[in-house]
Amino acid sequence: MKLGRILRETLEGAVPRLVVAQLEHERVIDLATAEYQRLLRTGASAEAARRLASALYPASMSAAIAAGPTFLEAIARTSASVEQGSALLPLGQVQWLAPLDPPVMRDCLAFEQHLRNSLNALAAALKTTPQIPDVYYELPIYYKGNPLTFIGHEQEVPWPDYTQRMDYELELGFVIGRAGKDLTAAQAKAHLFGVTIFNDFSARDIQAREMQGLLGPAKGKDFATALGPWITTADELDVHNLTMVARVNGEEWSRGSSSTILWRVEEIIAYISKAEGVQAGELIGSGTVGWGCGMEHGKMLKPGDVVELEVEGIGILRNKMGAPAPTGWIPPRRTPATL
Amino acid sequence: MKLGRILRETLEGAVPRLVVAQLEHERVIDLATAEYQRLLRTGASAEAARRLASALYPASMSAAIAAGPTFLEAIARTSASVEQGSALLPLGQVQWLAPLDPPVMRDCLAFEQHLRNSLNALAAALKTTPQIPDVYYELPIYYKGNPLTFIGHEQEVPWPDYTQRMDYELELGFVIGRAGKDLTAAQAKAHLFGVTIFNDFSARDIQAREMQGLLGPAKGKDFATALGPWITTADELDVHNLTMVARVNGEEWSRGSSSTILWRVEEIIAYISKAEGVQAGELIGSGTVGWGCGMEHGKMLKPGDVVELEVEGIGILRNKMGAPAPTGWIPPRRTPATL
Repeated sequence: MKLGRILRETLEGAVPRLVVAQLEHERVIDLATAEYQRLLRTGASAEAARRLASALYPASMSAAIAAGPTFLEAIARTSASVEQGSALLPLGQVQWLAPLDPPVMRDCLAFEQHLRNSLNALAAALKTTPQIPDVYYELPIYYKGNPLTFIGHEQEVPWPDYTQRMDYELELGFVIGRAGKDLTAAQAKAHLFGVTIFNDFSARDIQAREMQGLLGPAKGKDFATALGPWITTADELDVHNLTMVARVNGEEWSRGSSSTILWRVEEIIAYISKAEGVQAGELIGSGTVGWGCGMEHGKMLKPGDVVELEVEGIGILRNKMGAPAPTGWIPPRRTPATL
Repeated sequence: MKLGRILRETLEGAVPRLVVAQLEHERVIDLATAEYQRLLRTGASAEAARRLASALYPASMSAAIAAGPTFLEAIARTSASVEQGSALLPLGQVQWLAPLDPPVMRDCLAFEQHLRNSLNALAAALKTTPQIPDVYYELPIYYKGNPLTFIGHEQEVPWPDYTQRMDYELELGFVIGRAGKDLTAAQAKAHLFGVTIFNDFSARDIQAREMQGLLGPAKGKDFATALGPWITTADELDVHNLTMVARVNGEEWSRGSSSTILWRVEEIIAYISKAEGVQAGELIGSGTVGWGCGMEHGKMLKPGDVVELEVEGIGILRNKMGAPAPTGWIPPRRTPATL
């Protein structure tokens, strides 16, 4: 099943709606509308049909996933009931949002080739050695991103005033299906709900500056992360054997495979669940596949460039780079004290 | 005004309730209950009174703050209406939660003395120099924490299986009152809602290991962050001149002042708002005040230790360290490939 979120106009402005994408019919089903219509046909009152439909299919995908097996069962029932009407929309004409709105987002760095290439490219700026730190072979470490700046398929990527070195990153996004804590890898398998395409847009200049402070990336990543176009449920994929491709303005820049990942997805989930737990509807990035960003090829993006990430079994996530923002406020430099 | 969250029993289990703490009366007011009773007295039906009271005072403090000036005006009206009854609870007998449940949490490192002391203590483990990186004088950088593991006053601190070196950190927590993007420092002043006490519990051993990967702290911090006991609104405080004290088992370990902060709070908010924006109900940690953690004094916490953080104008945040968790799953070490 392929599950996404779109923006639809209502009397109270545009609102997010959950959809199932049926590629073979080139359409999506607006699940709340379809369920409302199905309930009406079974004899429910309009008020009860609206109430039940919006409880099953809220605006938040992460909240919907938290219902557990009930959610996927409901989608199967709702989708099977649709034949015509306002719940059906042509696939090419909807306005996509990020398919997920999670409470927290982590992003690993689990492809060794990308790690090696990136450290080679950034070592001078980071004032470190290009040697891969041991900890990458010991633990599936990650940084935490900003889940409030996700964008969807075909949404424009904002270009912050503080960067001249803009890059894409070709990643998988693992979606957690149910909460768990202190899981083993064997247990963690059942906690994967599905996979989406994850473009971890990166401002390389500020990223290299801020990472010298050892607190991890922030402004270098948090202006935008693209996700989508939808989540493919885990039953339809061999997560550890997917071809991954990136194109810029139609030209292939990156090609890789999820088979080269250093940690299995269940090991990553189990590690994250230690002490703090994972939540239903969370998102975990795989890290960039080897050769999966411009920096690894000595290339950067320009305003107006169109970046397409394609992952086998999911689809194509396409985003255009926006124009650079006008220069804003900058913190005044401090003078070190004599302590 | 001092605003917090407590847990109260209902027919559907324990639920979070927003409260205003009246220290002079040694009591808290359950705002949803008080507003329900006030509305009933004005002639509202029970159903309407419940609906309106829970819309103003939801379970989420961050969601409540997002209502803007309406929220503080409502609290003044609700509090003034209470004289007796089930909305009043003795201050010492409530079960506190973290006063905030934000969508994202950032934590700065904005006290130079702590930065110097910490780098001296961690340089060997981090395989870096004790020199403070220039970026700390150029930008108010920060890492992002896990807002899903906040604990409140008097809640026990979980002790993960992966640490033997547990520490506290004495910080302020700045609460954002309204959304804004690309703010100047002058504009950002009006976006501060209030301040709470922030204990950034830290597992120093895993923190030093994971930070070698340059992605910032994660497992070293994300098992628990204590906040509270409440938020003091900004009008009651001189944020840049507060005495801060930490005691362990009653003995003073740390004493400092927020006047030594390298960046003003409005500069921090303005910087964070660049490109990505800040949201109402967000939390930003100040970073640890100089000499504000055990590591700076060559000391660590033990299971059962009681840590009290006291900040002038707010109060005392007290937490007891739990027993170490039993050893769980550990990722199997990888062998570096020849790429």
